[in-house]
Amino acid sequence: MFTGLSAFPLSPLGHDGIDEPAFIGLMARLVAARVDSICALGSTGNYAYLRADQRRRITQLAVAHAGDIPVVIGIGALTTDDVLAYAEHAQHAGADGLLLPPMSYQPLQAEEVFALYESVSRMVDIPICVYDNPTTTHFEFSDELHAAIARLPNIGSIKIPGVPADHDAATNRVKDLKARLPSGVTVGVSGDAFAARGLNAGCDAWYSVVGGLFPEAAQAITQAARAGQAGLATKRCDALSPLWQLYGRHGGSLRVIATAAEQLGLVSPECLPRPLQTLDDAGRRALADVLETLALN
Amino acid sequence: MFTGLSAFPLSPLGHDGIDEPAFIGLMARLVAARVDSICALGSTGNYAYLRADQRRRITQLAVAHAGDIPVVIGIGALTTDDVLAYAEHAQHAGADGLLLPPMSYQPLQAEEVFALYESVSRMVDIPICVYDNPTTTHFEFSDELHAAIARLPNIGSIKIPGVPADHDAATNRVKDLKARLPSGVTVGVSGDAFAARGLNAGCDAWYSVVGGLFPEAAQAITQAARAGQAGLATKRCDALSPLWQLYGRHGGSLRVIATAAEQLGLVSPECLPRPLQTLDDAGRRALADVLETLALN
Repeated sequence: MFTGLSAFPLSPLGHDGIDEPAFIGLMARLVAARVDSICALGSTGNYAYLRADQRRRITQLAVAHAGDIPVVIGIGALTTDDVLAYAEHAQHAGADGLLLPPMSYQPLQAEEVFALYESVSRMVDIPICVYDNPTTTHFEFSDELHAAIARLPNIGSIKIPGVPADHDAATNRVKDLKARLPSGVTVGVSGDAFAARGLNAGCDAWYSVVGGLFPEAAQAITQAARAGQAGLATKRCDALSPLWQLYGRHGGSLRVIATAAEQLGLVSPECLPRPLQTLDDAGRRALADVLETLALN
Repeated sequence: MFTGLSAFPLSPLGHDGIDEPAFIGLMARLVAARVDSICALGSTGNYAYLRADQRRRITQLAVAHAGDIPVVIGIGALTTDDVLAYAEHAQHAGADGLLLPPMSYQPLQAEEVFALYESVSRMVDIPICVYDNPTTTHFEFSDELHAAIARLPNIGSIKIPGVPADHDAATNRVKDLKARLPSGVTVGVSGDAFAARGLNAGCDAWYSVVGGLFPEAAQAITQAARAGQAGLATKRCDALSPLWQLYGRHGGSLRVIATAAEQLGLVSPECLPRPLQTLDDAGRRALADVLETLALN
């Protein structure tokens, strides 16, 4: 499950909470594109901003509309008690795997993060992906901590926040990390701009934001890399760099992808939870141009 | 209200949620010491980790047990809708002021933070303290943004995360910031180790963690500084530096102050929400020594 293209859909809001038809529509695109897994309630799925009942509903909808594609559910929360409750619900609802970010408000200590993963891993019997992204969680994993967590039961993968720019450095980075992990624990790259670089460097999976909205474009990169066509993967990933540049200009991928979904008519306006905003008029014009040029639709 | 010593009590947990008798006991210490204001549900009050019903209960208890001391209630949340609901509840419950941190998961843009403060400031009719502490909120205010927010209705104070070490640099920093603010908007220092330095540099208030547990020690620093006895304030603040060093060793003030409250028998063991942990045995021994040496009780 934690190999290939893992697509992260939005959890679009409407006037009255979750826009269920819109979410189901996003799921349908992913199923049609035959992504390798679907991860609902990741950062792109705004897990941190939704109420418990909304998260449970997204979980049910994801499981119900994924067909035979494995579903991973994000279970991050600020308290261990909430994480455990989300884990239990997701497993009971039929999720195939769990994504666990060490979400923080007060900066966390390594032993606190270890204890969090220990509590969850001992309670569940489906595999967990460790979510390492300091931009959102504000926690930096050491390799030692990754190794210690990966030896816990039910740890299936580590989602890393990118790789070095240089191919050899990236390859060594992935090799070094994997050498510390039990065999069977995969490593997946995130940060869409790093996709080809990470996959070409030996990452087993791409945890993909763009893949949650434009799965064919993400599939084309993933399949080239996994077929050993490193140059083709790089070329296809670089072709999307106007999109990656918009991510950089708007504080990350979320606002850009949410606005793109809106421009395609797949979600309602203002689909993000305030205070998060979709793009302003100038940003919208630039994005519309990029989507047209890249034939993303 | 936003001048002098503002004390930030813990929101201690017991076996079954909020430990109400313990919270009431902490409030009684603050009332007895005649602090200038009490801020419940600040970062020290674990606002980010509590359920809505728990936050409403702390709000009610703080108002009920503050006597004639002004009560400020923290209303931070990841979504604007939740912030507005907490603001409405706190105002209705009788709070005298509000503390609003720009809590974030996805990194926030300046215009999103401005819109958050705008929404709240137009809805309430009690003053708001702007909470600036990138260590917990992961948002960095520019002075321009502070100035723009301070011109909104009902903004009463800005809580800044410390001042430069050098006295002249600190004085200039506070003077520069105040020059950008409407008169009547106070500036308060936070970061306990900065207390004397900030007050001596012209800050109007100290938003104090240690003052939430040891109000007399914090009063002694505040009153010396506000009486113009800068050297005495510095001496009293420096005398507590063994405590500030423990803050540094344990990832901030919260774990240390929570453990100290436990060692004094004021709260139950494990009063913090998991994954946050109080100190381990070695940390506890060091803290007990410091509390004894400094006669903090």
